[in-house]
Amino acid sequence: MSNERLIYLPLGGAGEIGMNAYVYGYGAPGKERLMLVDLGVAFPDMDGSPGVDLIVPDIDWLVDNVDRLDGIIITHAHEDHIGGLAHLWPQLKKPVYTRKFTAAIGRLKFEEAGLPQDAIHTVEARPAVVQIGPFAVQFMPVSHSIPESAMLVIDTPAGRVIHTADFKRDPTPIVGEGWDDAAMAALAAEGPVKAVMCDSTNVFSPLPGRSESTLAEPIAELIRAQPGMVVATTFASNVARLKTLAEAGVAADRTICLLGRAMRRMVTTAQETGVLTGFPRTVSPEEAIELPRRNLMLIVTGSQGERRAASAALSRGKYLGIELKEGDTFLFSSKTIPGNERDVLKIVNALSEKGIEIVDDNNGKYHVSGHANRPDLEAVHRLFLPDMLIPMHGEHRHLREHTRLAHEAGLASTVATNGTMLDISGDVPVVVERIQTGRVYVDGTALVGAMDGVVRDRIRMALNGMVMVTVILDEQDEPLGEAWVELMGLAATGLGDRPLAETMEQELTEFLEGAGGKVLSDDDKLDEALKRIVRQVAMEEIGKKPEVRVVISRLATE
Amino acid sequence: MSNERLIYLPLGGAGEIGMNAYVYGYGAPGKERLMLVDLGVAFPDMDGSPGVDLIVPDIDWLVDNVDRLDGIIITHAHEDHIGGLAHLWPQLKKPVYTRKFTAAIGRLKFEEAGLPQDAIHTVEARPAVVQIGPFAVQFMPVSHSIPESAMLVIDTPAGRVIHTADFKRDPTPIVGEGWDDAAMAALAAEGPVKAVMCDSTNVFSPLPGRSESTLAEPIAELIRAQPGMVVATTFASNVARLKTLAEAGVAADRTICLLGRAMRRMVTTAQETGVLTGFPRTVSPEEAIELPRRNLMLIVTGSQGERRAASAALSRGKYLGIELKEGDTFLFSSKTIPGNERDVLKIVNALSEKGIEIVDDNNGKYHVSGHANRPDLEAVHRLFLPDMLIPMHGEHRHLREHTRLAHEAGLASTVATNGTMLDISGDVPVVVERIQTGRVYVDGTALVGAMDGVVRDRIRMALNGMVMVTVILDEQDEPLGEAWVELMGLAATGLGDRPLAETMEQELTEFLEGAGGKVLSDDDKLDEALKRIVRQVAMEEIGKKPEVRVVISRLATE
Repeated sequence: MSNERLIYLPLGGAGEIGMNAYVYGYGAPGKERLMLVDLGVAFPDMDGSPGVDLIVPDIDWLVDNVDRLDGIIITHAHEDHIGGLAHLWPQLKKPVYTRKFTAAIGRLKFEEAGLPQDAIHTVEARPAVVQIGPFAVQFMPVSHSIPESAMLVIDTPAGRVIHTADFKRDPTPIVGEGWDDAAMAALAAEGPVKAVMCDSTNVFSPLPGRSESTLAEPIAELIRAQPGMVVATTFASNVARLKTLAEAGVAADRTICLLGRAMRRMVTTAQETGVLTGFPRTVSPEEAIELPRRNLMLIVTGSQGERRAASAALSRGKYLGIELKEGDTFLFSSKTIPGNERDVLKIVNALSEKGIEIVDDNNGKYHVSGHANRPDLEAVHRLFLPDMLIPMHGEHRHLREHTRLAHEAGLASTVATNGTMLDISGDVPVVVERIQTGRVYVDGTALVGAMDGVVRDRIRMALNGMVMVTVILDEQDEPLGEAWVELMGLAATGLGDRPLAETMEQELTEFLEGAGGKVLSDDDKLDEALKRIVRQVAMEEIGKKPEVRVVISRLATE
Repeated sequence: MSNERLIYLPLGGAGEIGMNAYVYGYGAPGKERLMLVDLGVAFPDMDGSPGVDLIVPDIDWLVDNVDRLDGIIITHAHEDHIGGLAHLWPQLKKPVYTRKFTAAIGRLKFEEAGLPQDAIHTVEARPAVVQIGPFAVQFMPVSHSIPESAMLVIDTPAGRVIHTADFKRDPTPIVGEGWDDAAMAALAAEGPVKAVMCDSTNVFSPLPGRSESTLAEPIAELIRAQPGMVVATTFASNVARLKTLAEAGVAADRTICLLGRAMRRMVTTAQETGVLTGFPRTVSPEEAIELPRRNLMLIVTGSQGERRAASAALSRGKYLGIELKEGDTFLFSSKTIPGNERDVLKIVNALSEKGIEIVDDNNGKYHVSGHANRPDLEAVHRLFLPDMLIPMHGEHRHLREHTRLAHEAGLASTVATNGTMLDISGDVPVVVERIQTGRVYVDGTALVGAMDGVVRDRIRMALNGMVMVTVILDEQDEPLGEAWVELMGLAATGLGDRPLAETMEQELTEFLEGAGGKVLSDDDKLDEALKRIVRQVAMEEIGKKPEVRVVISRLATE
């Protein structure tokens, strides 16, 4: 037995917020049986990943060792935990275990992707146990900003590990199971915990988290005071918030209309799985436009400024027949995620131009976070008093701060970012290996490695513009006709308003006429010379160094 | 006289934070003599303006009416007020009036751009008067986050206008003239004010602004407590903050080293113009590395995460021989401007990985804003009690909120965004014309209209990738050789790992072989057909619709 070990290996989520993917293993070194917890996505941005649809973790290591993988657990249905599953499962093809609401969401994704829905197994909450290889796993309900997040209680031959998943300590979460102090105390009383792997997202929030239930009254009061239509936006998956908003609307004599496919799907799935009950009656957009504005409330997608979501569409103009106007009120029952500020403010300003009243979260009056704040994390440290606390789900700064917190509580702790394999068999975590990890882009239907250069080329074209040169040579290496230049993303004219393409063509043609056979017969030399000329002209004429592609066509005898 | 009017026309800054440019005019309609106040830049971003160097206002209207323009005033040396001057002055060629520090900064810019430095005239503060056409202008010193911001007192035949410029009500701003209540009261007592054009940046900040002088003690205390090197970053132009930081460092037994060209230039210019005195002795990076870490303090550029600034360089590794390490402290004596969060967090996380202690503004303990907050704006409304208050410098949401504030104070007010010409001769503002305005990109050495499509093409290439097709036809419209495809920014392989370019070439060549003379002889038809095939293959193979450029070469008889 002393030859076997318990390992922990984050492949995503440790060093970033997003694309969670954590591997646990038990067995002889290099022969551990493996279990994957979560397989999420991160979201692209124009700065670093233009044109990309989604970002998933690089799971090459897991694919190389797939014969040792016994199963996949999804802790909850947020995209940063489940979003990569349909894209990467075909490389793993192992059973997926999760609770019923999350399973329903997962099966919808599998259906769309043409994958077998029966690969997703519904499990019951603790005390039910799922055996995945050497791991006996219980799903302990915790509150979060989506129904049914599950803290994993993982019993292994080397001891018990608690994987908190995303959670907050909310005894009254409106929808789904709350944080149950007594049940948690009972769990803690069952015996020693070797390690807690713990959510770090809100480690910099100094005050205890507030309950979802604190929002109902302020929101109802706000809505009652509005003279026109009320539009509220929040995350589509925050089913509890949708209920709070809808009930507040009904209390203010308003009929509810949900806009946005993702939101309707979440509500339907939550209702079908029995997670959500008592949700007020909703009407279609067609019915909504027949109602007096002061009796209508829209709940819409797009709280982060997403360009294709309902919020953005409504800020631009009429959407599904509905148009906002002066006297209406728009409530952001949400916080802007860092990086989305510009998109959100674009919507705010567009609404402002229409004369709409805009209400933000008002320092938490109309929004609470779904993650455990610093004092809540400290409470969890004290509750389980594990041998070690390993921070997960956070940028480096979050993980480091969380480690510090653990040390203050007297717990062993270390920052383990993506690719860091820890041996957690003993009393303290020991780094045993560094695995090559990274990001993979879902780009259309293709998977592209972040380091493949494809997206780097896009960024270069966007920053520098593009010049395409065509040259035709005959079999004696003599130029046929003149060089041809196409510009993309570059100023059309340079100094003295000369057309830039013509200036380039002239210089290139002059060069070709004077060039010797040594250059003309050598594709590499010719390519290099032509690129140099193009860059030189561009720098002189418009002060830029564009990307250049040269196509040299050599016509052979027929 | 009743035929003459006083007009106000924002060309930039009204509907955005940045690129301030405001026109005043007096005279018969359409024949007003004009004066321009400020000519600033806005900063590009990858989302909307990739590869662009700077954004300046579209001043076509002013250029069309340049014979009526009598002069240009610059209120202060922030880039969003002076940054466009060197780029656009060649189209205006009118005298520039500003105070000495700002004039020195302006002359440095003119020198670099090869423009005549004597076009910039240094003016004295009130009671000195500068006559610009029909406008008698006094420069009233106000406090801001750069030395020498000036509120303009503009006397016109139609009455007095106050143009606040960027300001805060700080009686003790450390460097430069403070807000002087007595002097302001004297100004207000001089007589009625027709209109106040007022900074709106901080209209959503509910508490009164705090003085720059409140920072010295907390920052000194912080620095004294640090065991290693201290690095502090703030805006290079915030000379007062640089002094506060440097003095705090000296008080903690540290020698100061300034890193970043912009910062050294600001300090030197402020010293040369007599605006800054008593700045502690600084050392070069070469001298700095010889000092014990706990006796060294760096003050560096890059508080907004700018990739080429000193902060970013230090977060990546050694910079000018200096390397940060565990035990050092990095202070952001600044606030992150919306949109820069991702770049700033990248630096924070890189520093976190090095084990550096990171300190942010700590809710204002280590940073104060340079703009008047809501209660300060209200105080200015009450001070001057103008007929009307026109909000300027702000996004639409700021302007609108500021208008609301003015209405609460019983003042006439309206939102006038860029291009809105107001007649302010009467008691209330009247919109008399809408001028075509917009944004112009400084792109390398070229000026490119935001609507020209150049940058749109860059964004498309970045989002969709690019395919370049080359086809050669002989004089009988017969294809010579096969179609040639180059991919840029696209996955190299499609379904079943087939090379995407080859699949496209195969389809294109097949099409060319089967195409009739009607298509082959018509460039437009052929271009369209080839593009369609490329897009179709791309969609099938990788699920994307790329940008396509086709080059058809027709070889003529020699």
